[in-house]
Amino acid sequence: MNYKLLIQYDGTDFHGWQIQEGQRTVQGELTEVLSLLESAPVQVHGSGRTDAGVHAEGQAASVNLSKNFTPEKLRSAINGNLRQDVRILKVENAAEDFHARFSACGKTYVYRVINAAVMSPFWVRYAVLETRDLNLDEMRKAAREFVGKHDWTAFSAASAEAENRVRTVTELTIETRLDERAQASVFEFRISAEGFLRYMVRSIVGTLLEVGRGEKSVETVREAVLTGNRFLAGATAPARGLTLLKVDYN
Amino acid sequence: MNYKLLIQYDGTDFHGWQIQEGQRTVQGELTEVLSLLESAPVQVHGSGRTDAGVHAEGQAASVNLSKNFTPEKLRSAINGNLRQDVRILKVENAAEDFHARFSACGKTYVYRVINAAVMSPFWVRYAVLETRDLNLDEMRKAAREFVGKHDWTAFSAASAEAENRVRTVTELTIETRLDERAQASVFEFRISAEGFLRYMVRSIVGTLLEVGRGEKSVETVREAVLTGNRFLAGATAPARGLTLLKVDYN
Repeated sequence: MNYKLLIQYDGTDFHGWQIQEGQRTVQGELTEVLSLLESAPVQVHGSGRTDAGVHAEGQAASVNLSKNFTPEKLRSAINGNLRQDVRILKVENAAEDFHARFSACGKTYVYRVINAAVMSPFWVRYAVLETRDLNLDEMRKAAREFVGKHDWTAFSAASAEAENRVRTVTELTIETRLDERAQASVFEFRISAEGFLRYMVRSIVGTLLEVGRGEKSVETVREAVLTGNRFLAGATAPARGLTLLKVDYN
Repeated sequence: MNYKLLIQYDGTDFHGWQIQEGQRTVQGELTEVLSLLESAPVQVHGSGRTDAGVHAEGQAASVNLSKNFTPEKLRSAINGNLRQDVRILKVENAAEDFHARFSACGKTYVYRVINAAVMSPFWVRYAVLETRDLNLDEMRKAAREFVGKHDWTAFSAASAEAENRVRTVTELTIETRLDERAQASVFEFRISAEGFLRYMVRSIVGTLLEVGRGEKSVETVREAVLTGNRFLAGATAPARGLTLLKVDYN
């Protein structure tokens, strides 16, 4: 039986999604628990990796088990064997050919920035602090430059595994609201794409923050996108501000 | 110079507010940092204690220092010496006779409950999970029984230090909203009073949750409030759901 899992994790204490010998990873813990339930080694496929420190409110994974569970029983059995910083929110029966990575047609990330003099202890694990004023209008202008089908060489890891760095960003919005707990403004950068390269979201957000602080122009952003020149892009924003919101399937 | 401090802390890793030999406490850490800045022992007065595991979005404290600091310099100097789970959001110059405890005229707490099948890793430190349905109408009816001037014997620690257990609850509201991060409903119980006894909020919330689950009637709540009979009150709700929201001063 093939199952689809909807997963949340606080990435703070994980070395990312992907299984690695001797490191605590989300895929590693899920593989261990599911292999225990199956009484045999199983393969857990995620929609894609998240880096160390990156969170997920809606990561997806698939796993094929020979045993039959009702979705709720399977969810309870997995959660009962996990620590509290990773949870299966939902289990669904999936078609035999469903694969969390190959079946995915899009993803949305959110990057959170607290704009205040002091970082609230309630956000320190999930957002970064920006003490300077951020020009929302300029950031929104620059954000439009990222939407569309582009070669993302300027906004990905130099060692990006992919040969082909063309991806399509379908939406990039920046919203700000007063967060009562932080007693400060929170900026939320939401980016949807058919696929992402490594560090792509963090590099785009780092660049937009430089625009917001008046350190980089919209024109420079446009040139970076069009030429793929890494020197025109901004610094990569820290992992802890990034959260995988959802994975889309047809 | 007398200073007023506005403080946030994630109470998870603290043994509460009050200074205790050999334990990590908020007052203990602030006293250490401020004594270092003063180059002499200082006394840090909080608006009141919070128990181990209880959080604060708006705790207040006062401290008298012989050295003169601008509020912003003092805030930076303190925060620079604290771990990230406790932060001074604001420092203000205060009148010589200002005392965070004796000058306080009221406080508001919030208690958060996630109503879902599974607890989100993003709320596990700050809320409790309730998997059963909660009857909001009944809880709101019962909530009205708590408002006013009462003897809180039924809703406080048996060993409560106070001889006089009469306090005035000025407001008790219950709101529910969909929390995007939890992908679930959150119930927020907000309670304001001129003063609280130990365990009072957690005992009131524990009782209201029993009403919400249909285990206790509004009439029993009324009788508990009026008679002070502890056996009629509900179980004390866990500390981690409780947050001190704000302290009022004239």
